[in-house]
Amino acid sequence: RYCYERNLAVNPQGGNTGLVGGSVPVFDEIILSTVLMNQIISFDKVSGILVCQAGCVLEKLNKYLEQQGFIMPLDLGAKGSCHIGGNVATNAGGLRLLRYGSLRGTVLGLEVVLADGSALDCLASLRKDNTGYDLKQLFIGSEGTLGVITAVSILCPQKPKAVNLAFLGCQSFAKVLETFTTCRAMLGEILSAYEFMDDKCMELVEKHLKLSSPVTGSPFYVLIETSGSNSTHDEEKLNSFLEQAMTSGLVTDGTVATDDKKIKATRFIWISLIPQMLWSLRERITEALTHDGYVYKYDISLPVGKLYDLVTDTRARLGRSAKNVVGYGHLGDGNLHLNITAESYSHSLLEAIEPFVYEWTARYSGSISAEHGLGFKKKQFIQYSKPPEAVFLMQRFKAMLDPKGILNPYKMLPSSS
Amino acid sequence: RYCYERNLAVNPQGGNTGLVGGSVPVFDEIILSTVLMNQIISFDKVSGILVCQAGCVLEKLNKYLEQQGFIMPLDLGAKGSCHIGGNVATNAGGLRLLRYGSLRGTVLGLEVVLADGSALDCLASLRKDNTGYDLKQLFIGSEGTLGVITAVSILCPQKPKAVNLAFLGCQSFAKVLETFTTCRAMLGEILSAYEFMDDKCMELVEKHLKLSSPVTGSPFYVLIETSGSNSTHDEEKLNSFLEQAMTSGLVTDGTVATDDKKIKATRFIWISLIPQMLWSLRERITEALTHDGYVYKYDISLPVGKLYDLVTDTRARLGRSAKNVVGYGHLGDGNLHLNITAESYSHSLLEAIEPFVYEWTARYSGSISAEHGLGFKKKQFIQYSKPPEAVFLMQRFKAMLDPKGILNPYKMLPSSS
Repeated sequence: RYCYERNLAVNPQGGNTGLVGGSVPVFDEIILSTVLMNQIISFDKVSGILVCQAGCVLEKLNKYLEQQGFIMPLDLGAKGSCHIGGNVATNAGGLRLLRYGSLRGTVLGLEVVLADGSALDCLASLRKDNTGYDLKQLFIGSEGTLGVITAVSILCPQKPKAVNLAFLGCQSFAKVLETFTTCRAMLGEILSAYEFMDDKCMELVEKHLKLSSPVTGSPFYVLIETSGSNSTHDEEKLNSFLEQAMTSGLVTDGTVATDDKKIKATRFIWISLIPQMLWSLRERITEALTHDGYVYKYDISLPVGKLYDLVTDTRARLGRSAKNVVGYGHLGDGNLHLNITAESYSHSLLEAIEPFVYEWTARYSGSISAEHGLGFKKKQFIQYSKPPEAVFLMQRFKAMLDPKGILNPYKMLPSSS
Repeated sequence: RYCYERNLAVNPQGGNTGLVGGSVPVFDEIILSTVLMNQIISFDKVSGILVCQAGCVLEKLNKYLEQQGFIMPLDLGAKGSCHIGGNVATNAGGLRLLRYGSLRGTVLGLEVVLADGSALDCLASLRKDNTGYDLKQLFIGSEGTLGVITAVSILCPQKPKAVNLAFLGCQSFAKVLETFTTCRAMLGEILSAYEFMDDKCMELVEKHLKLSSPVTGSPFYVLIETSGSNSTHDEEKLNSFLEQAMTSGLVTDGTVATDDKKIKATRFIWISLIPQMLWSLRERITEALTHDGYVYKYDISLPVGKLYDLVTDTRARLGRSAKNVVGYGHLGDGNLHLNITAESYSHSLLEAIEPFVYEWTARYSGSISAEHGLGFKKKQFIQYSKPPEAVFLMQRFKAMLDPKGILNPYKMLPSSS
């Protein structure tokens, strides 16, 4: 209210872990930090519903829930510093989306401070409520441009009793896709992640971070996670899937890590390894890229069949002007992380990449920002993923809820003409 | 556009199966029927994404998907006649919500005709897309008051290979709750429904429909469904749960039905019965109530621990002025269907029920409409579940998107003063 009356612009900031500059002030905004709003308000063990303030760190919430036999429905690399308020404001995706769905389904309520300083209390703790429009949805993924999220009510799944990981090598992207279809049919309800990465990613992780992969010599790698309530059943399902995948030539090599400390006797090497060691091969790709030079980052949704063609086409287009062009991501969700490295930033390289990547994505009806939002850096590209009528309607919502334009200005939407 | 220019009011109508009069014209509205818009536009077997027109009947879509090895993420009693467009417009819940989540997570895109006749194309087929505000969410559950849904893109789960049903008797509502906690822990990822009903429901189903229940003599009954990818594993999980529930006295009697035709040798009677026969005991309660007289229907969300107290309190309050007061519903989702029957409609009985039921619900932060919306009949009660600021904001959205008030007028929101 103080800021509204004085026409002062506000830039909400949580863990400041975003990719597109959504939480960084542009000119002279006041930074409104949620760091002191870090209290858990309530947790109900029967329903699994957690209510907490916006400044709670994701990893801390997850640790708290684990003690009660539950987990957060989302998990991401930045979990050690990102805030739940920022996760909701950016509609974060991450590693568990394949299994537990998006925040649009799991967030049950929000408390939001509007531009005029008044609080909007939609902090319900009910799985079902059809009384009027679902206002909270407008704030989920609005990147702080419509209101500042101050508290969150969220539905949490039970902590799985058994977790297994398989790391596999495939000879082509077509086999990565076929392995996904097979694995979804055979692992069914216990499949909790299906991530892929190309050999360039693995090269960089080995070179810059000295991690060594237990599986080598394939152009593509797949990381499969299962989470279930009965370890014997889960291992049986995983073993039959692996047998099938090997026999039919979908997969040429593989390793399995399990929470169980027993070594299994199968055609696969079951190693007594905490799953986290295999996960780090996937999770630390971002870090390895940073060591490789300046990084151009793209976070794209595409129909899964087309996913890797964008990497191949970009690599061919850029030729030797890029150091490395790599592709990895959440294949199960149709989400590709395309990254291009160079010795240093070059404007001519940027012009070779953009708008090429956006045009390519638009041609196949993809999204130019799957999970990271638009922020300051990508707001002028929204038209590649949304028709003009939709952008115009968004601008009308913004004008209605924030008539003075003080909430996270210069972000997300192109300025209305 | 025709109607907009001539200031004609429009009442969208699909299968006309709603409870609150949302699809029934009030005065002189033109009925806009979606019945001819019944085409499937596309289905992708790798991602499980279905795109179809709004007038497709839910059951027909499910049959089509079953041939491809998938199912719709929602299922409800009215499936034979309700339209997918109406399901989305009312944010329908139903029997599979516990497992597959709400439409807010599974609907990926919508095509909507706005009040001025222009079409808004948000018909994306991507699991993840964070480019701008998620406009489609405003239309989900808006009951046709902000726009008319003409096409839907929706994420569909794989068809489960094994389905088992257990029908159990419990001696108290506290045991119904404890059975839920135990069953969620032991059945984990294969649990797909947890429905409860009281003995009054069962009495009416037996009396009016001549159905006979395999389990009798308990004050509460529970219907548990499992859906999984491996029938042996699922039966093992279900058996250990049932052993545990019997041994600890949570459950006093029970029957299990399975798709498998084998008779199982356990302490439980496994009957070679198609699961649909047990389901009908639950699904046909509504029909049985209709035969019992005039029915006052309430669809309430509450914290699960409080759920049945509303039935007990209502029964005590009404005494002999009501014929029957029954409670059943989706316990796993915290959703109670409270129904009161009488020989005929009586205004004094209505006044004894309302606003008592709404005030009771508001006291425990529940929702006065869990899955059926507000429509024409309940719009004046929205304040029991939403604060005035929220209702005011909804009215502003309505005024912005439908300035002439021609879309499904007199519905959902109280008229703004």
